[in-house]
Amino acid sequence: MGKEMEKEMGHENKIIQDRLALLRAKMQEKGIDYYMMPTADFHSSEYVNDYFKVREYFCNFSGSNGTLVVWPEGAGLWTDGRYFIQADKELAGTGVELFRMQEEGVPSIEEFLAQRMQSGETLGFDGRVIAARDGRRYEEKFKAAGKDIQIHCTEDLAEEIWTDRPDFPAGKVTVLAEELAGRSVAQKLSDVRKKLTAAGAEDLLLTKLDDLMWLFNIRGCDVECNPVAMSYGYITQDSAVLFIQEQVLDDEVRAYLSASQIKVQAYDEIVPYLEALTSGRKILIDMRYCSYVLYRALTAKQTVVEACNPTEALKAVKNPVELAHMKEIYLKDSVALTKFIYWLKTNIGKIEITEISAADKLEAFRREIPEFLDLSFPTIAGYGANAAMMHYEATPENHAVLQPEGLFLVDSGGQYLGGTTDVTRTIALGPVSDEQKLHYTMVINAVMQLTHARWLYGCSGRNLDILARQPIWNLGLDYKCGTGHGVGYILNVHEGPQNMRWRFAKGQEDAVFEEGMDITNEPGIYIEGSHGIRIENVMVARNDVKNEYGQFMHFETLTWVPIDFDAIDEQYLTDVTKTMLCEYQREVYEKVSPYLSEEERAWLKKETWA
Amino acid sequence: MGKEMEKEMGHENKIIQDRLALLRAKMQEKGIDYYMMPTADFHSSEYVNDYFKVREYFCNFSGSNGTLVVWPEGAGLWTDGRYFIQADKELAGTGVELFRMQEEGVPSIEEFLAQRMQSGETLGFDGRVIAARDGRRYEEKFKAAGKDIQIHCTEDLAEEIWTDRPDFPAGKVTVLAEELAGRSVAQKLSDVRKKLTAAGAEDLLLTKLDDLMWLFNIRGCDVECNPVAMSYGYITQDSAVLFIQEQVLDDEVRAYLSASQIKVQAYDEIVPYLEALTSGRKILIDMRYCSYVLYRALTAKQTVVEACNPTEALKAVKNPVELAHMKEIYLKDSVALTKFIYWLKTNIGKIEITEISAADKLEAFRREIPEFLDLSFPTIAGYGANAAMMHYEATPENHAVLQPEGLFLVDSGGQYLGGTTDVTRTIALGPVSDEQKLHYTMVINAVMQLTHARWLYGCSGRNLDILARQPIWNLGLDYKCGTGHGVGYILNVHEGPQNMRWRFAKGQEDAVFEEGMDITNEPGIYIEGSHGIRIENVMVARNDVKNEYGQFMHFETLTWVPIDFDAIDEQYLTDVTKTMLCEYQREVYEKVSPYLSEEERAWLKKETWA
Repeated sequence: MGKEMEKEMGHENKIIQDRLALLRAKMQEKGIDYYMMPTADFHSSEYVNDYFKVREYFCNFSGSNGTLVVWPEGAGLWTDGRYFIQADKELAGTGVELFRMQEEGVPSIEEFLAQRMQSGETLGFDGRVIAARDGRRYEEKFKAAGKDIQIHCTEDLAEEIWTDRPDFPAGKVTVLAEELAGRSVAQKLSDVRKKLTAAGAEDLLLTKLDDLMWLFNIRGCDVECNPVAMSYGYITQDSAVLFIQEQVLDDEVRAYLSASQIKVQAYDEIVPYLEALTSGRKILIDMRYCSYVLYRALTAKQTVVEACNPTEALKAVKNPVELAHMKEIYLKDSVALTKFIYWLKTNIGKIEITEISAADKLEAFRREIPEFLDLSFPTIAGYGANAAMMHYEATPENHAVLQPEGLFLVDSGGQYLGGTTDVTRTIALGPVSDEQKLHYTMVINAVMQLTHARWLYGCSGRNLDILARQPIWNLGLDYKCGTGHGVGYILNVHEGPQNMRWRFAKGQEDAVFEEGMDITNEPGIYIEGSHGIRIENVMVARNDVKNEYGQFMHFETLTWVPIDFDAIDEQYLTDVTKTMLCEYQREVYEKVSPYLSEEERAWLKKETWA
Repeated sequence: MGKEMEKEMGHENKIIQDRLALLRAKMQEKGIDYYMMPTADFHSSEYVNDYFKVREYFCNFSGSNGTLVVWPEGAGLWTDGRYFIQADKELAGTGVELFRMQEEGVPSIEEFLAQRMQSGETLGFDGRVIAARDGRRYEEKFKAAGKDIQIHCTEDLAEEIWTDRPDFPAGKVTVLAEELAGRSVAQKLSDVRKKLTAAGAEDLLLTKLDDLMWLFNIRGCDVECNPVAMSYGYITQDSAVLFIQEQVLDDEVRAYLSASQIKVQAYDEIVPYLEALTSGRKILIDMRYCSYVLYRALTAKQTVVEACNPTEALKAVKNPVELAHMKEIYLKDSVALTKFIYWLKTNIGKIEITEISAADKLEAFRREIPEFLDLSFPTIAGYGANAAMMHYEATPENHAVLQPEGLFLVDSGGQYLGGTTDVTRTIALGPVSDEQKLHYTMVINAVMQLTHARWLYGCSGRNLDILARQPIWNLGLDYKCGTGHGVGYILNVHEGPQNMRWRFAKGQEDAVFEEGMDITNEPGIYIEGSHGIRIENVMVARNDVKNEYGQFMHFETLTWVPIDFDAIDEQYLTDVTKTMLCEYQREVYEKVSPYLSEEERAWLKKETWA
């Protein structure tokens, strides 16, 4: 579709205009005045299957975040600062107006609708792709504005218009053996049920895909790089029902689910099932991930307990079996990346290497690992100024050829039977400027300070974040994102509730680090038009001494890939950080060198000062 | 009273038992089954006048935090961990049981009452000394327990029993000239009214004493070391009433208030005034500081807007005039402490010096400063193991004689026309053990790291605290308190909303550092039975570069007293901290030396390596 669209650039985009005309006709037919399309699946997943890219179909904007609103005389696309330039380009000729979110004077979607819509009018959206929290926010906004707006949320208007729509995702499901999962479904259900009781709820309606996979010890492939299957779960104190498409289960999975006393029902049966429940149950739902349609199906007859999914905190703490597998897999993944860096350093300037061919080469090294399943996210490989864009993705049409100078940033990871990895290295391909060396060295100071954090139980990322940020703030610079996020286990590369960031909205709660929680450590410096530097390791929170002051904790690092000394200016390393860095490099050599060829090993020895 | 009580130690404490008998008779007369006495005045002040020490009168416990509950067959005293040993001793023979707060299996007061009291019974307390927030919590606890408990809150039963009770505080009030205050009452009222409107309120019932002093630019002397006067304020969009005892105002103050268009009414008239208000007003009260009685007087006919006093955040940001005075006063106060350290270092081992005589000598140095008014809190002067008790106060009966060895901790401050100071130094009086040097040096690392914090606007103490705590946590040690607190301007030495601490209860909000907010920087190490180390400077948050990343900020230090190199072991100073420390010492010499005698100056030069 991309190319077809590009031809239209700078002119009218007839294709989109025609699609919008069809949509408006459908709206009129249904009595809908405003129709809203976010970027979400039925589970508020961070990444979605192509089937759900309705918003892109109707406005050509392909970014990962954006909501399209269409009304009889116009249409608007709301997106955030990462995508203003891209949206401007992709919306050209479509007649869709860009609303730059968070910019001064730009109304939010709900402000726009509450201001513009009149009493008696109808707002339409597919209530399956709007989270309960958001749907209710619209209701409240209309009420506060004193307007009587109807909400029509039971139809997906794209259904009859988007004729060549991709199939609804229905990838095969596999069972995650208990040797890999560490805990049986029965044990996990027991943990969840205790938490339900503590939260004052009887049942759990679970809608978040990675939480469902974790709970039932299964994996799917319905979202790119995210091994999840479209499903729902309904857990009571003595039963568990998995709603999933019949065709994705083979006999083995059916036998496993049956043996685990998990009842299987069809994915589509979730709404009738909820509607048929005896009334007056106390049902926990997570308003961030439960769809507005399911929420409305419950509120009529049930008591809704609004809380975080109890699975979230349980999943975040990796159990000893998971951690043992992760250590092994992270080492293998580190070896692959180390081999790639050697290949890159020895071939740059000799053969043509592009951002794309480099990413492919790295993927090839990962594919050699027997446990490899997939990438854990599309590789970010940015050379020079491209690396300054935090979410850069090289395309066949638009990418750079690497030169034997400057910095190359690679943020990548794999899905393995044994863990999900996420690692970033920034590599000097030749001469590097003094400013780049200063920035690189400060990022190293940041990574090392956070690596060696020691704290009392009770701290969250809000307390620790400054350990990484301080060396960068000292330069009058900042990275406009968190310092780290949780990582799934053979699941999504982004996972909560733990995170590493300093800024919180009023009332926003942060998760305390528990023994076994994993977190990335990825400070960076991004200078627009010049360079981008990020170093990322994954760490696990660990208990340390317990004494009269409390339970001390520290991080254990899982990632063992050399830091590029070629990009460091030693004068900017503090004595403490220098010691830490040398220790890390020595450990990289010790752990990784046994898996290298003789040439690679010799290079690594030099690279790590071992 | 202290001595009279001590005679009874180990035996029955007849005096207290007799007082409790009188109280129980009074309770029966009034139909009160349980009577509760906290440690508070009518304004929930942190420190209270002797008039309010009812709890001590009835149980002999003199600590700064504790609540006594009396019922027909018994009595209980609730206090926190700082006071368990002291309470055990002071309660001996009184028949009052000690409830150790926060210990496992020990009920809180409300749990105790809700569990023990029966429907139809009556709980009594003087509703003027219970905060609205707490009174309502009791109500809710009883309701949740399904018990119909009456609350009798309109009488102070001590009134007719405590015959030799100190007079109600009524110290003279003075006007703080605008040259010292920096902003007129009219300007402050205008700021407050804007904040009221923003909070959705029309009027403000102001009950917090230091906020009242700040707003009206007056000072009193009704609480030891706290220059406040018993008063209330009622602010509307076009009027301001000050409720204050007639006899504390002289003609000058009356003239000033009148010229400032502040209406004066008698302190006692606050309740009838509130009851006589036309109904339906939106009145902001701060539930932490408004008494339960005033809250109840409002809820019948008015809409209560529960929020932080708008004065709190305004008062916390020191204006440029206040800051200019503070800089001057902090230097003078630093000179006094420096002179004291010199005196101590040159006289130790030659003349007898006790914890008390040392504190007196320091006070004498302060009294030489023309602007000196009072101490800002009773000096904490702890030698050796005594310094390990964070809130140690030497008494004539119980104090140490200083020896020419080990560490001596002095935490002290003054009230001046021009500022309130708070400073701690720990001084080597002779040989110091290796462990003590290690601890001392780590505290210096902590102070210096926080001093040189640099951050983006939006950070609070929750983000920055770890910069101070990290070197101490690295040793597996901790200080069981915050790293810092706000300091008043010719007002209370403890002030909010800013603070420096890492641990927050769920939902608790922290205050972002604003340009001009002051904060103490006082990490420490306390080893029971051995030594206590604390170094404390006061700093002011300042704006720094503003760029595309936001508003950078840093701290400016106000305290210039030498750090004792005799207690430092250089091997534990990082290179970064060493540079910072040398810079600080050099600046101390530059600023302080002009005000010293020749001998003092020569010593300081050596002491600061200048």
